[in-house]
Amino acid sequence: MKEDGIGPGQIIRRQHNGELEYDRDELTVEEPLEIRIRDETVATTMRTPGHDEELAAGFLVSEAIVWPVDKIERFSRPKTALNRDNVMIVNLAGGKKPSLRSSQRFGTVSSSCGLCGKKSVEAMRQTFARIKANSFRIDIETLLSLPERMRANQSDFARTGGIHAAGIFGRSGQPLIVREDIGRHNAVDKAIGWAFLDRKLPLDRHLLLVSGRASFEIMQKALAGGIPIVASVSAPSSLAMEFARANNQTLIGFLRPPSFNIYSHVERVILES
Amino acid sequence: MKEDGIGPGQIIRRQHNGELEYDRDELTVEEPLEIRIRDETVATTMRTPGHDEELAAGFLVSEAIVWPVDKIERFSRPKTALNRDNVMIVNLAGGKKPSLRSSQRFGTVSSSCGLCGKKSVEAMRQTFARIKANSFRIDIETLLSLPERMRANQSDFARTGGIHAAGIFGRSGQPLIVREDIGRHNAVDKAIGWAFLDRKLPLDRHLLLVSGRASFEIMQKALAGGIPIVASVSAPSSLAMEFARANNQTLIGFLRPPSFNIYSHVERVILES
Repeated sequence: MKEDGIGPGQIIRRQHNGELEYDRDELTVEEPLEIRIRDETVATTMRTPGHDEELAAGFLVSEAIVWPVDKIERFSRPKTALNRDNVMIVNLAGGKKPSLRSSQRFGTVSSSCGLCGKKSVEAMRQTFARIKANSFRIDIETLLSLPERMRANQSDFARTGGIHAAGIFGRSGQPLIVREDIGRHNAVDKAIGWAFLDRKLPLDRHLLLVSGRASFEIMQKALAGGIPIVASVSAPSSLAMEFARANNQTLIGFLRPPSFNIYSHVERVILES
Repeated sequence: MKEDGIGPGQIIRRQHNGELEYDRDELTVEEPLEIRIRDETVATTMRTPGHDEELAAGFLVSEAIVWPVDKIERFSRPKTALNRDNVMIVNLAGGKKPSLRSSQRFGTVSSSCGLCGKKSVEAMRQTFARIKANSFRIDIETLLSLPERMRANQSDFARTGGIHAAGIFGRSGQPLIVREDIGRHNAVDKAIGWAFLDRKLPLDRHLLLVSGRASFEIMQKALAGGIPIVASVSAPSSLAMEFARANNQTLIGFLRPPSFNIYSHVERVILES
């Protein structure tokens, strides 16, 4: 596999202009990653290989298993395993072993759905602090520039739609980090995990942009990272909007210049120029 | 909530033609569904309410917890629960209690990722029979007509992209069933669950069309339903292609008339007119 998560070219048949030709095609790689804390499996998720440390860290922070103040001492692969590249072992500093709640322990939570493994509906809502009212705001011109800025930080291949992207941006629209993955949740985990490992949490002066739809779990991950504004180029769900309103997050959907919708906390968007 | 999975209109701010107007917007409803067999929780998935019986049935069949020969005696809601509409209790005929494998028992598998809850990478691959070589084939003209036929069976709202669709079609392109959900896996589960409840499995003379990308789990669900051809309007993943090739499934991607790609078992597409 190449560095950028693209598999080897595959011979396929392509129908184009009425001719069914032999051709070569590149596909986004999809492989499972099992995340362990020491010897305990916490999650298995389908992901695009690459940035596995960031993915594991971001997932653990998003699920409130590891906290922003925690430190990860070491990432490792199992010494012996059939597919050792598909396992990531996390050791916390000081030998700390997080006390998984029963819903976490039972469930092999997965970042590709963000909710798997919760033993009941009642156990679903994570406990994070609401976003504080603060002075972080973004102007419309900057907001409208973000989809193009994210694309500029992606590979050519990504633009074909075979992979999702998540980007974290500052007030003036400068990208802090852009990550890609076949799963939209994983792309967010990789971005937040990068910030965690670089000791940048909470990202309370930043905006998260996602290429897929804004679901409940995306809002939860943003909240775990302390991010006050979430924008999606696609549709939000009803629960994402409810979650955003309850947690003081600004939620922007259908960000397709020159248009966008604001679903909650419009006060963080500077309306007057 | 209305019948079609759309929530009540919400007042939002919409930027359009340089004006930020107050407007009303409809969002796809996203709510959790906990699936239980008798008193045991098997899965919690985020879904669009509606066709919950089909979703539960299709999920259980896809995960090899219930087999096509099994019968479901009764669906019910818990008598007392905070959100009883978000729980579906399944009772199998004859009081049968499926023996969940440890990977299934531990994990609250979720159809929105299809893999959650598997305790290890090794436990990932499900065991279903490969598709048999048979005479089911589809011609190119019919294949190219399917995306439009699926859209014709969707709501206006769905066309905005806020919801995924899965359709099962016969040889001449007639739709057997089209189902929608905010999660692409759930849409497939609802379609296959409908076929299961109508005693139509295996669907060995049919094609599955999905609006989202074709991932490994989609191929697994199609295999559980005995479906020989899977088409996606979007990209397949590398693992989906490997899975299709190994299980004798025809995988078609980027079905966007007049073009498409064939990733495996081209022999089921009639090339000569």
